[in-house]
Amino acid sequence: MSAAEETTGEDTPWGEVTPEAARRLLVAAVDAFAERGYHATTTRDIAGRAGMSPAALYIHFKTKEELLHRISKIGHERALYVLDTEADRDGTAAERLAGAVRSFVRWHAERHTTARVVQYELDALGEEHRTEIVALRRRSDAVVRRIIGEGVRDGEFDVPDVPGTTLAVLSLCIDVARWFNAQGSRTPDEVGELYADLVLRMVGARTASGQK
Amino acid sequence: MSAAEETTGEDTPWGEVTPEAARRLLVAAVDAFAERGYHATTTRDIAGRAGMSPAALYIHFKTKEELLHRISKIGHERALYVLDTEADRDGTAAERLAGAVRSFVRWHAERHTTARVVQYELDALGEEHRTEIVALRRRSDAVVRRIIGEGVRDGEFDVPDVPGTTLAVLSLCIDVARWFNAQGSRTPDEVGELYADLVLRMVGARTASGQK
Repeated sequence: MSAAEETTGEDTPWGEVTPEAARRLLVAAVDAFAERGYHATTTRDIAGRAGMSPAALYIHFKTKEELLHRISKIGHERALYVLDTEADRDGTAAERLAGAVRSFVRWHAERHTTARVVQYELDALGEEHRTEIVALRRRSDAVVRRIIGEGVRDGEFDVPDVPGTTLAVLSLCIDVARWFNAQGSRTPDEVGELYADLVLRMVGARTASGQK
Repeated sequence: MSAAEETTGEDTPWGEVTPEAARRLLVAAVDAFAERGYHATTTRDIAGRAGMSPAALYIHFKTKEELLHRISKIGHERALYVLDTEADRDGTAAERLAGAVRSFVRWHAERHTTARVVQYELDALGEEHRTEIVALRRRSDAVVRRIIGEGVRDGEFDVPDVPGTTLAVLSLCIDVARWFNAQGSRTPDEVGELYADLVLRMVGARTASGQK
């Protein structure tokens, strides 16, 4: 178990999905969507990757969209949990913002395949599901905006445009999922550390370290 | 013609592609790839969108991958041109970095549909084409790294990790293509302005304006 898995409370990827057959189908769907895209993937492909029959898939998921929704919902809830946990710690706004960026970046690096599906296939969700996911995204946005706002209020940060800077901070972290390469020269922890420092600079933090 | 189109020398999107039938096919391919993904799109779909027969498509492009390669190559060359133009201007490193970020962001916002295809379908390119595109990406990276390096050398910037900061700056700009919404509250110019300021903060520029 890696440090990132401990931080985010994930012992097994998708461990919250039961029974085991449903979990296997979800993992197979993430891989298939990431590799070929949602629209090019059939439920038959997903069942095959999971070593199951299409009929066995339908016991757990009625449609391909239901699989995507489940993946997207768990992914977004996990990301929100990561941000909430850091935001609610004791400490200065700089410490909490740095912690949130470290954890959020680590999540997008460690789980980059899932994160790509979660981030790039939003348009494939049905309307009701899309509305639900957009609400989760707004909550993540609100957590970061709140920390930045508190830093400004307390005179720790200097931020002319709080909503715009919040958008940029989240965007910077999310895009880690696009470029991160597990074989690359930087570990998820190293990227998290670099990004925490860059984000403290973006908000004009009095101290640019934010170390705990 | 918008300001961004003037800046990047684009009178007509894909105006450099001739004959007109090939240009129409390319525009149709961008839309289809962006909407459904590369793997879920057939050459028949693309021909249909362009109001042409599959046989007419094959006169101009032998394979679907050839279309993607053409799109990707033009998109990457355009992005590199935008960065190079700003990098080669007279001015301080801060002015040139701010200019490069403004133009690069504007390009990703104005041309977000193209940029998504260019950024997210790299893995679908054949090996030889992928190598060619990766080389173009390295050149874009080198332009930004050079400006940041010059700022550090001249004492204008304070950057502990030049390659990491370069990566983050480009990533921040590229991700605009994911979230930018033409119906949203910010124009491409406004996002460019906000991001130029944020990037000057990331590099610890002595002055945080970089205005010309």
